[in-house]
Amino acid sequence: MKRNLCFFLLFFSLFNGLALGDWNILNQKGKNNKLGISLKNYCESWRINVELNNIRGFDVVPEECVEYIGKYMTSTQYKVDLERALEECTLFVSTNFVLKGDGKDAWIFDIDDTLLSTVPYYKQHSFGGEKLNMTCLERWMKTSKAPSVAYTLDLYNEIKGRGIKIFLISSRGELLRDATIDNLVNVGYHGWTGLILRGLEDAGKNVQSYKAEQRKRLKDDGYRIWGIVGDQWSSFEGAPSARRTFKLPNSLYYVA
Amino acid sequence: MKRNLCFFLLFFSLFNGLALGDWNILNQKGKNNKLGISLKNYCESWRINVELNNIRGFDVVPEECVEYIGKYMTSTQYKVDLERALEECTLFVSTNFVLKGDGKDAWIFDIDDTLLSTVPYYKQHSFGGEKLNMTCLERWMKTSKAPSVAYTLDLYNEIKGRGIKIFLISSRGELLRDATIDNLVNVGYHGWTGLILRGLEDAGKNVQSYKAEQRKRLKDDGYRIWGIVGDQWSSFEGAPSARRTFKLPNSLYYVA
Repeated sequence: MKRNLCFFLLFFSLFNGLALGDWNILNQKGKNNKLGISLKNYCESWRINVELNNIRGFDVVPEECVEYIGKYMTSTQYKVDLERALEECTLFVSTNFVLKGDGKDAWIFDIDDTLLSTVPYYKQHSFGGEKLNMTCLERWMKTSKAPSVAYTLDLYNEIKGRGIKIFLISSRGELLRDATIDNLVNVGYHGWTGLILRGLEDAGKNVQSYKAEQRKRLKDDGYRIWGIVGDQWSSFEGAPSARRTFKLPNSLYYVA
Repeated sequence: MKRNLCFFLLFFSLFNGLALGDWNILNQKGKNNKLGISLKNYCESWRINVELNNIRGFDVVPEECVEYIGKYMTSTQYKVDLERALEECTLFVSTNFVLKGDGKDAWIFDIDDTLLSTVPYYKQHSFGGEKLNMTCLERWMKTSKAPSVAYTLDLYNEIKGRGIKIFLISSRGELLRDATIDNLVNVGYHGWTGLILRGLEDAGKNVQSYKAEQRKRLKDDGYRIWGIVGDQWSSFEGAPSARRTFKLPNSLYYVA
């Protein structure tokens, strides 16, 4: 019955919610034809501008780019991009700072699309081309079946192995705590110092403010936040920040 | 004579300065072969991680990616990426704020690779694959021959036309003031409120601190900084910031 509701919502949004895309409108006007650009050019420019944080607050991946974004998020290139980001992070951890060893050196990770991949969910939901149905997504999260994001487990263990305390700050709600722990442990993550999820008191806040507040709490507790690894700019913005931040690619959705 | 020195430095750096790239080392170790990745995958991951601000402080484009980066920076894709960034900026300007009209609404632009393109210079200098020779670059800048960056003039005029005061904050030195003004005017830019270049007192500062200081001066003078358009993360970082920032792609060099 619940699955039927998901399918209904999927078809409803496909047939009603998706307006004719920018691409088609621009092409009809001939505006973009001065460069003779292809759909690939157009969708790649959409993707890079999402990554550059120039395109913000989108609800859905543009209809005409769903195939392109889906291909990227399941491609070798996505994995290589992730690997390179995490290599830079390892380099930073290995060479750029000396820990005090007083148990107050800290590192922050996002969960979704940083430690655990939601790509299998979005594969079933038009790769971000349909408006997010939080009930459907949370039902999927409760199954604890998300695979780990490529290479992140190695980095996680590398950081933990250096004696840095790991805090996971996620916009998942407290109701998902058990399922989240199960999922993390199932794919190999353990030994974090804090798993911070959104409580009822955080319901009205946007994710950026909520995450900044949690970092402030850590700082007030005496932690030095060396780095943050996340897939959304809202995981880094606002004060206090960290000495370095590492942005993983993700053009499936936008979290403000 | 001066031209000969440039050529000498070019060849010296080509034959002495460029170590065997990461790509070759990794390939010899077989480390990257687990994904069967191509040189294109490798160079694209370098480029995207530069744009994501994960790779910082590089002196040169990796030898093995010079061709790839050169192709991108002279491609239709680069132009489409720029156009999309500037369209998002226009959208922000058109819809997101109401000017006070007291002459204190301000907007900041970088100059190099934001208003004026240095791509023709880098085309002659291995597309960032040789270490920057500031004397050579400044000699080129003094010729005032830089073309405008695609689409930026339209945005510049759009913002100016709304009565927003435009400030150009550049890491170019004061010695280049006349040449810079000539170049800007030649390609169509005029009517800015301030052209801020690095004076002798800024010589010891990194670009990020220098630019943040200049923004602070503007704020102290009562300006509201609505936006910044630049091609380097150092144009945005540090306080005070702006309500929005727009990062243009540029993987030819890194300015800290």
